[in-house]
Amino acid sequence: MTSSIGADADPPRHDVSFLADLGLDGEVSLGESDRDEHATDYTTDEADAVRPDAVVYPASTADVSAVVAAADERGIPVTAYAAGTGLEDGAVPAHAGISLDMTRMDAIREIRPDDLQVDVGPGAIGADVDEAVAKHGLFFPPLPSSGDISTIGGMIATDASGMGTVKYGEVADWVLELEVVLADGSVTTVGSKAAKSSSGYNLKELIVGSEGTLGIVTRATLELAGRPEQIRGGRAVFPTLDDATAAISDAVTAGVDVAKIELFDAETAMLANDYSDADLPERPMVFVEFHANHGIDEEIDFCRAVFEAHDVAQFEIASGDRMDDLWRARKDITYAAEAYDPQREMGQPGDVTVPIGSYPEMIRAVKEVADEYDLFVPCFGHAGDGNLHYFVLQNPDDPEEVARAEAVYGELVERALELSGTATGEHGIGAGKRTYLEREHGETAVGAMRAIKEALDPNGTLNPGTVVPEE
Amino acid sequence: MTSSIGADADPPRHDVSFLADLGLDGEVSLGESDRDEHATDYTTDEADAVRPDAVVYPASTADVSAVVAAADERGIPVTAYAAGTGLEDGAVPAHAGISLDMTRMDAIREIRPDDLQVDVGPGAIGADVDEAVAKHGLFFPPLPSSGDISTIGGMIATDASGMGTVKYGEVADWVLELEVVLADGSVTTVGSKAAKSSSGYNLKELIVGSEGTLGIVTRATLELAGRPEQIRGGRAVFPTLDDATAAISDAVTAGVDVAKIELFDAETAMLANDYSDADLPERPMVFVEFHANHGIDEEIDFCRAVFEAHDVAQFEIASGDRMDDLWRARKDITYAAEAYDPQREMGQPGDVTVPIGSYPEMIRAVKEVADEYDLFVPCFGHAGDGNLHYFVLQNPDDPEEVARAEAVYGELVERALELSGTATGEHGIGAGKRTYLEREHGETAVGAMRAIKEALDPNGTLNPGTVVPEE
Repeated sequence: MTSSIGADADPPRHDVSFLADLGLDGEVSLGESDRDEHATDYTTDEADAVRPDAVVYPASTADVSAVVAAADERGIPVTAYAAGTGLEDGAVPAHAGISLDMTRMDAIREIRPDDLQVDVGPGAIGADVDEAVAKHGLFFPPLPSSGDISTIGGMIATDASGMGTVKYGEVADWVLELEVVLADGSVTTVGSKAAKSSSGYNLKELIVGSEGTLGIVTRATLELAGRPEQIRGGRAVFPTLDDATAAISDAVTAGVDVAKIELFDAETAMLANDYSDADLPERPMVFVEFHANHGIDEEIDFCRAVFEAHDVAQFEIASGDRMDDLWRARKDITYAAEAYDPQREMGQPGDVTVPIGSYPEMIRAVKEVADEYDLFVPCFGHAGDGNLHYFVLQNPDDPEEVARAEAVYGELVERALELSGTATGEHGIGAGKRTYLEREHGETAVGAMRAIKEALDPNGTLNPGTVVPEE
Repeated sequence: MTSSIGADADPPRHDVSFLADLGLDGEVSLGESDRDEHATDYTTDEADAVRPDAVVYPASTADVSAVVAAADERGIPVTAYAAGTGLEDGAVPAHAGISLDMTRMDAIREIRPDDLQVDVGPGAIGADVDEAVAKHGLFFPPLPSSGDISTIGGMIATDASGMGTVKYGEVADWVLELEVVLADGSVTTVGSKAAKSSSGYNLKELIVGSEGTLGIVTRATLELAGRPEQIRGGRAVFPTLDDATAAISDAVTAGVDVAKIELFDAETAMLANDYSDADLPERPMVFVEFHANHGIDEEIDFCRAVFEAHDVAQFEIASGDRMDDLWRARKDITYAAEAYDPQREMGQPGDVTVPIGSYPEMIRAVKEVADEYDLFVPCFGHAGDGNLHYFVLQNPDDPEEVARAEAVYGELVERALELSGTATGEHGIGAGKRTYLEREHGETAVGAMRAIKEALDPNGTLNPGTVVPEE
């Protein structure tokens, strides 16, 4: 893995006794198990875990403001935490201090169906929001694959996206307004409840994706859409990986209105078969889903015609349970990778994105690099956006193999950047990918990011060790 | 009008003789007519016009960098200028100095159909870009109504949007990567050619809409979409304004897939009839356009059913020339307002946006305020986004009437903000609306904007007097 927390493994500890005197409505915990739990996120290496000095569970914006203001005065780091589902160590308190656990601020405060809006606390679980608005015939379109367990606050922190992004865009596109606590404890709102605005600098887009380093989100107004009346989906199998990727590119550039279009290479199909009785053909395949209010059959026919031009071998589309069956292997892929080989861990999943025309080349790069380093690297992903995921399966007890796996991760990011892509399509920079930030954006752009960080958080209180590298 | 340039009407002049020594490939002009031309944008009041000390027509990024670096060292303001179609005085050089005319950097550099991308210079006219990519079956979806005369750079500066935004989003949503010259003359790129990225702070969204106050865009990579195979559109007439706005709200919340949905009130219909032989019924009406690859008839039927529930009186949909005829009054509305009464000018068009559920209330507010101040205020707009435009027709030679008109503009912004809306949906803050920035976003958020401005432009070189108010 490429992960490397910026701080010392054992950072200096902070005196957090002041927390008891803040009169918070929420809870302060100095307990060992709380601190252990907040030392890692979903894939943090043991060596990179950092225990906070205290965990605070704020109950309100006023609590967050009080903690942040007091910590800022004392030079004590504050790192927001929620479901712990991050993949790049963005919620690990690299410099210790306070872990601010937002999960109790999880209210679904107000649904305004006439405005297609909902106000939620940052701790609300994505799927819970989606379920609450379903009663009004609405949904939250950019919900990522992790939406059953991850929070709205976490999605905002990384500008998450996922399978629906090819049709609906990223989380940022569905965030209208945020209440934010800035580094000095002041509370503000950014963005607008209007569907569009040209009013001043776009602070909302600056906060989204900033991983708690510029402010802490305490409330979000999200935009919603009407649930589609027709949903159908299924799976197509292709003779070769080149056929599959060319079919996807053609579908996207021809304007097939897919709601999801996901790739599995043959190795990923093998992984899935090993995990369940899916009995997939061990060949490249594409999962598709369509959303429409009418005319869905014509759209499916359009897609089929594009796929047939690329020698599709099987193409089954269904609805309801059969559709879920066809998709199950895709939905379970992370569990399949975790279970595949007790000797081998999956590491932090790769998450590069390249312009759609370069997607076939990026996949060929994965195959080449996997061969070169003699490792098993199944790859899959949100192909319609040019977003590729891969697991470099590795034996964590074999340092030589771990080193090879790290080299694979590094080389694949390098290949993505050579193809005008990005080091992280949706997981964030966190601590794990800070080393690539300058390689991707250049020294001047990173300098501008650093200037903004210093302007908004002059004492470096908010999540130090994440996003912007130390100078 | 609410416009008020921040600087003195006659700001201190600057010694720009250094420009001759920079060895630019482009041109430096000190000529009177050039300076006059760059003293205003589309609707600048004579009293607010400010002549720059020099006009520079850069030929390259290197030229822009050289001018900005040298000006920054000398404390001389640099204000980017292009087509001069802005409506909030954002391109008026409020503190004089250099007007940097980007119109010669208008190359359409590279079209990459497989990536759905085009690289253009900031001076490229929107419609020219759209025409160039049409050869590949593509289009630039967020092109605003002014696209025939306005530049890509100007659209980026204000985060423009327009009729297609209800389906396709704003200009920001279609900007992937920008080359930008920062205040010290350094050149960087922001954003990514990948369709999505979670890599570091979103500098791209910060530059978009910043009206040349944080950096000067010298190249843009835009995302494109496939041209729809079916386009149909037309016009619906409603008995009352409440029927029309309720029909629009229902269509949007029910998920009718309109590409454009525009409102005229009866007064605007009158204005249009006065300008041409359109012979519109002088009642509220809604213009719609549909884009699809198939199934367009079902979508139109869906829309018709929604409109019928609101007692639609006429609903004609067509294609080709007949569609253009049905739409002509909407497309010509600014010319109609300019021509309506030789005694009355239209002023800077109002541009508030409110949550869609409050759109009927916002329109009622326009009627109330127009009655209260006894002025003719036809209103219309991008109803699907909650974006409302209006002209407060006023006699510029009657100071009392001008004062009443200003009060109307101010009061309507106030009403929009009370309805959780924004002071400017798509025209930008410019100089004209700086007074509302703090009212809309609050002191803390404006403080954060100012901190960002100071971090990225410490000498205040870039377009001072625009967006962020002086302290």
